[in-house]
Amino acid sequence: MSDILIKNVTIVTMNERDEVIQGGDILISDGKIAAVGANLRAAAQGSVETVATPGPERHARVIDATGKIALPGFVNAHTHAAMTLFRGYADDLPLAEWLETKIWPAERRLTADDVYWGTLLSCDEMIRSGVTTFADQYFFMDKVAEAVEISGMRGVLSRGLIGVAPGAEGSLKEAITFCRRWNGKAGGRISTMLGPHAIYTCPPVFIEKVVKEAEMLGVGLHIHISETQKEVRECVERYGSSPVKVLKDAGLFELKVLAAHCVHLSREDMEILAQFGVGVAHNPTSNLKLASGIAPVPEMLKMGITVGIGTDGAASNNNLDMVEEMRLCALIHKVTSLDPTVLPARTALRMATTFGARAVGLGKMIGSIEPGKLADIILVDAHRPHMVPAHDVVSHLVYAAHSDDISTVIINGQVVMEEGRILTIDEERVFEEVQTRARRLAGKR
Amino acid sequence: MSDILIKNVTIVTMNERDEVIQGGDILISDGKIAAVGANLRAAAQGSVETVATPGPERHARVIDATGKIALPGFVNAHTHAAMTLFRGYADDLPLAEWLETKIWPAERRLTADDVYWGTLLSCDEMIRSGVTTFADQYFFMDKVAEAVEISGMRGVLSRGLIGVAPGAEGSLKEAITFCRRWNGKAGGRISTMLGPHAIYTCPPVFIEKVVKEAEMLGVGLHIHISETQKEVRECVERYGSSPVKVLKDAGLFELKVLAAHCVHLSREDMEILAQFGVGVAHNPTSNLKLASGIAPVPEMLKMGITVGIGTDGAASNNNLDMVEEMRLCALIHKVTSLDPTVLPARTALRMATTFGARAVGLGKMIGSIEPGKLADIILVDAHRPHMVPAHDVVSHLVYAAHSDDISTVIINGQVVMEEGRILTIDEERVFEEVQTRARRLAGKR
Repeated sequence: MSDILIKNVTIVTMNERDEVIQGGDILISDGKIAAVGANLRAAAQGSVETVATPGPERHARVIDATGKIALPGFVNAHTHAAMTLFRGYADDLPLAEWLETKIWPAERRLTADDVYWGTLLSCDEMIRSGVTTFADQYFFMDKVAEAVEISGMRGVLSRGLIGVAPGAEGSLKEAITFCRRWNGKAGGRISTMLGPHAIYTCPPVFIEKVVKEAEMLGVGLHIHISETQKEVRECVERYGSSPVKVLKDAGLFELKVLAAHCVHLSREDMEILAQFGVGVAHNPTSNLKLASGIAPVPEMLKMGITVGIGTDGAASNNNLDMVEEMRLCALIHKVTSLDPTVLPARTALRMATTFGARAVGLGKMIGSIEPGKLADIILVDAHRPHMVPAHDVVSHLVYAAHSDDISTVIINGQVVMEEGRILTIDEERVFEEVQTRARRLAGKR
Repeated sequence: MSDILIKNVTIVTMNERDEVIQGGDILISDGKIAAVGANLRAAAQGSVETVATPGPERHARVIDATGKIALPGFVNAHTHAAMTLFRGYADDLPLAEWLETKIWPAERRLTADDVYWGTLLSCDEMIRSGVTTFADQYFFMDKVAEAVEISGMRGVLSRGLIGVAPGAEGSLKEAITFCRRWNGKAGGRISTMLGPHAIYTCPPVFIEKVVKEAEMLGVGLHIHISETQKEVRECVERYGSSPVKVLKDAGLFELKVLAAHCVHLSREDMEILAQFGVGVAHNPTSNLKLASGIAPVPEMLKMGITVGIGTDGAASNNNLDMVEEMRLCALIHKVTSLDPTVLPARTALRMATTFGARAVGLGKMIGSIEPGKLADIILVDAHRPHMVPAHDVVSHLVYAAHSDDISTVIINGQVVMEEGRILTIDEERVFEEVQTRARRLAGKR
């Protein structure tokens, strides 16, 4: 793999000092960020020269990024990637009707190959919106992993487990096999988790079993928590306390947990999440579209809970645009608190990058542009009408940017999109496959 | 002006029957929509041939729009276009601090030429996001009109009037002169209104005076109503009733009124708006960003009030992206009502087009693709990952589309953007001018 030197770029590092470097350079070597700085050019070229031998000759590919902004790739902390197959298939329906008459019947018709193509489409879309890592929970996960491998993305993958389903034991075995087969694969781009779906589909005894398996595998857990009022109400009726409390008692939080949604939380729930270092994936669009509610994100952040941002699946969004998701996150909490200062642009950008990385268990590897981190970097074209004038680069990224401004995406040191051209995926083939399969899944000819 | 024949396009007509025509054609002649239909090709070509003489030879320019969606251009029902100059200049501040320490001091430094270039930048951005008409309220309105004329857009323009300011009388005179000079100009693309800013800046006696002048001029009125709780509270304290009630008593609603925001309304307020046929401009992003509140849009629609959508100015948004604005409108009301069916995609699209047209007083001229209407048409490229698979075109436009999918924009029969290239504005020049002027306005060198 050749080195890459990105030159003359505004670097929004997202490091702890929140540094923004004007006209800086980034040197990428062996898939990692080797150096970052304003006066890097000479030093970087020097370092490239010093490693020019032995073996195949090393050389740095130079990307002139004048007029562009570099920032760490976005982390989509919660999605069901293959659900792009159901984009626009069922909208504006009550949740139960949506699931029971539309989504579930269509999902029962899904094949492994459908999931492969649906996931590949979502990878294409996510790369285009600057996502370099996504946390996925679905089924036919071998196919999801294959799509991740081909696309060049980083994936944190979990097979969804429904403890109350007849095949629950088989699914758990399948999930364990999946973790063993894929953890650390695709050049380290794939990590795995176990994915007990939620408390209303996985009783505490099943959760306990899954936690034990996860502990033996050395992986974390990805779960939905307190997405709707109904979930919380029924959990209290059935088990006597809130989902967070019941899951805590089942030992879930002893391991690394990625908890999606967390919309309806009590103060005590939040204290538990903070205490156990649970990572939360906030999904603002999905929570609005399904009328689930608005998560208490400012409160969670104040209590030190790591909150990332996710798009959820395309059936409840209906795109996978992290720029939009980040903006919506910055907007909605202002109005629920009637306080325009409650979640500033800088915090939203941090949630979409460093906090997301931490929430999915990769906080030490990705999420900022710093020497030693993996090279997951996106370049944003600021030469667009909605990015003029250049008063404040972070404000523009959060409140004004379009995902289509993202011109170049580098993941693990590999250029996967260059000036708007996806290099890893045959888009035309993907569009055709998904179109044909989506028609079949919808019961059309 | 040559005729234009748009061929092989999916037409989202937004006519009363809500027709979507697959593989249809649109014939544009003399700035108007001459014919629309599925089997139009032969007839259209026939009609073009029959008008081939006399005078300069007429011919139809053919646009092959295979794979694209045609819909009526968006109406941005409320903005302050020149405020692009302050994009990102001041965010995440309490409203009073934002206005008093940032926006107002910077606005005091504004020159007429600043307003010209800021407006031109916003026209560029709006055209790119599919806006064909915008309703503006600002000052140095001659310059705004010049920018509208050059850009090719349709504008409903009003000089903002502050009744409590020392120069109120002079401003009103200026506004009257502006209406006389510009109403109907730029090939009919400019219409004018009087713009009393709001009840907290314009006492009832001043409102009465403005209404009289508007009546004599034969123009409507553009005003901010009940944007914040503070505005309503202070109005009740000062005048004994709500802004809507006080404005009604001052005779405002006897004329055509475009009322921006309308966030904090009582049932009685809404009844008054419905009774007098007031057009409302809903500004979801701005209302969230400034933590003003969420307007009771589903209730207003149910009562038959015409509600369009606006971006507000770029200082409180911070872009002028009507696709995003429409999507946000479709999302936020679901969660406030906890009902995912309350504002479906079709309604949001109608608000951004036909309802917007009606709200700004142009309902008979624009807002749908129907023979006889003015040719304000946009083409959306559906061959994008986030628009696949093609389950439902209206759902995709509202829940999935990006504004950058808009490839071609036609206003008044003139192509102003073609395959992403703006034909009327020198973008590079505009970027440079705005950048330089914005630095000066921010007090920088």
